[in-house]
Amino acid sequence: MAEFKLHCFSQSGNAYKAALMLALCGADWEPVQVDFFAGEGRRPDWRETVNEMGEAPVLEHKGRNFSQSGVILTYLSRLFGQFAPANEDEDLEVLRWMLFDNHKFTSYFATYRFFYSLSPQPGDPAVLAFLKGRADGAYAIVDKRLTERPFLIGDRATIADISLAGYVFYPQDEHGYDFAASHPGIHAWMQRLRALPGWTGPYELMPGDKFTASR
Amino acid sequence: MAEFKLHCFSQSGNAYKAALMLALCGADWEPVQVDFFAGEGRRPDWRETVNEMGEAPVLEHKGRNFSQSGVILTYLSRLFGQFAPANEDEDLEVLRWMLFDNHKFTSYFATYRFFYSLSPQPGDPAVLAFLKGRADGAYAIVDKRLTERPFLIGDRATIADISLAGYVFYPQDEHGYDFAASHPGIHAWMQRLRALPGWTGPYELMPGDKFTASR
Repeated sequence: MAEFKLHCFSQSGNAYKAALMLALCGADWEPVQVDFFAGEGRRPDWRETVNEMGEAPVLEHKGRNFSQSGVILTYLSRLFGQFAPANEDEDLEVLRWMLFDNHKFTSYFATYRFFYSLSPQPGDPAVLAFLKGRADGAYAIVDKRLTERPFLIGDRATIADISLAGYVFYPQDEHGYDFAASHPGIHAWMQRLRALPGWTGPYELMPGDKFTASR
Repeated sequence: MAEFKLHCFSQSGNAYKAALMLALCGADWEPVQVDFFAGEGRRPDWRETVNEMGEAPVLEHKGRNFSQSGVILTYLSRLFGQFAPANEDEDLEVLRWMLFDNHKFTSYFATYRFFYSLSPQPGDPAVLAFLKGRADGAYAIVDKRLTERPFLIGDRATIADISLAGYVFYPQDEHGYDFAASHPGIHAWMQRLRALPGWTGPYELMPGDKFTASR
């Protein structure tokens, strides 16, 4: 039995953050597929036993369940001593970018992508426009930041980078963004992340087929 | 000159999280009003000198600027030794709820409130319905949690509670929620927070008039 179990599914960039961290740390882990689109995260028994927040990813380790990708990243960075902040100032700066990620960078982009290509019904145009406007605002801030330094808090990758990398590696047909053209800072940073030993893409790392649009 | 300066405005519940923490800790602080609705957070010079993320609150202390309410709460809890997690397990649990707050609890409710009553033009009905659906999902999870224990991680208030309390104290006419009727767990928790020594409401704590609808 593997040391870590990760409740995840391949289409979830939030789950990918945790899976990528496990891969980059060389952890002994195995995935447990969550049938999220069939509503598993909304089932009362799942909420009772796995995560009351109804969300993936959930990391199981030594009989404990950890949820929220930022918690899992923080826990693993302390355990493995990798991608961790080096001091108190860096700790707050990493937290700052993880919070921005959860509030604005990942959240609007992920929800936009869902309505753009994954949801059974096409999203309402006004909702899509709202989400894209918010995602664009957050992506512009991060793109500027990443033209000024190689990684979010400086010269080396930390869990802040792994957090913000959750959704950027999904194929363009799922979200419509061509980062090389629109966000050169983010595009160059993606190449630096891809070069890290152990980097693997979301559909190779987690169970579940690559999404193919049914509409 | 006060020891702490907080860039804030009364309508921002994210700023209120920081202001409430300063008040509860008895800190020597003064507000610096941000004219957010006039676009101050979007001005290039403001982003350059105050916060590249374009957001309030920003805490100034000893020549340094801290942004993201969760960072400010963490920094102040360490400095004052108040509302802080007591050990590593609590640290991760506090972080878990602060991340959920930023991703889902505060973020959808705050944006819903903005389009419901604050934005110059009424929000698109589809966008309002989307945001309310997401906010309701997050509020139900927190309401259930708070019927089972007095505060988010147990028997005492921590920065997780102060984070999730950002928007709940704004008047009902700004968001339309009557928590006493719809969310009794949250309503009871609000009374416990109000009873903390130093508790003050957002419009009493920060500069800027209470919003009155111009439409």
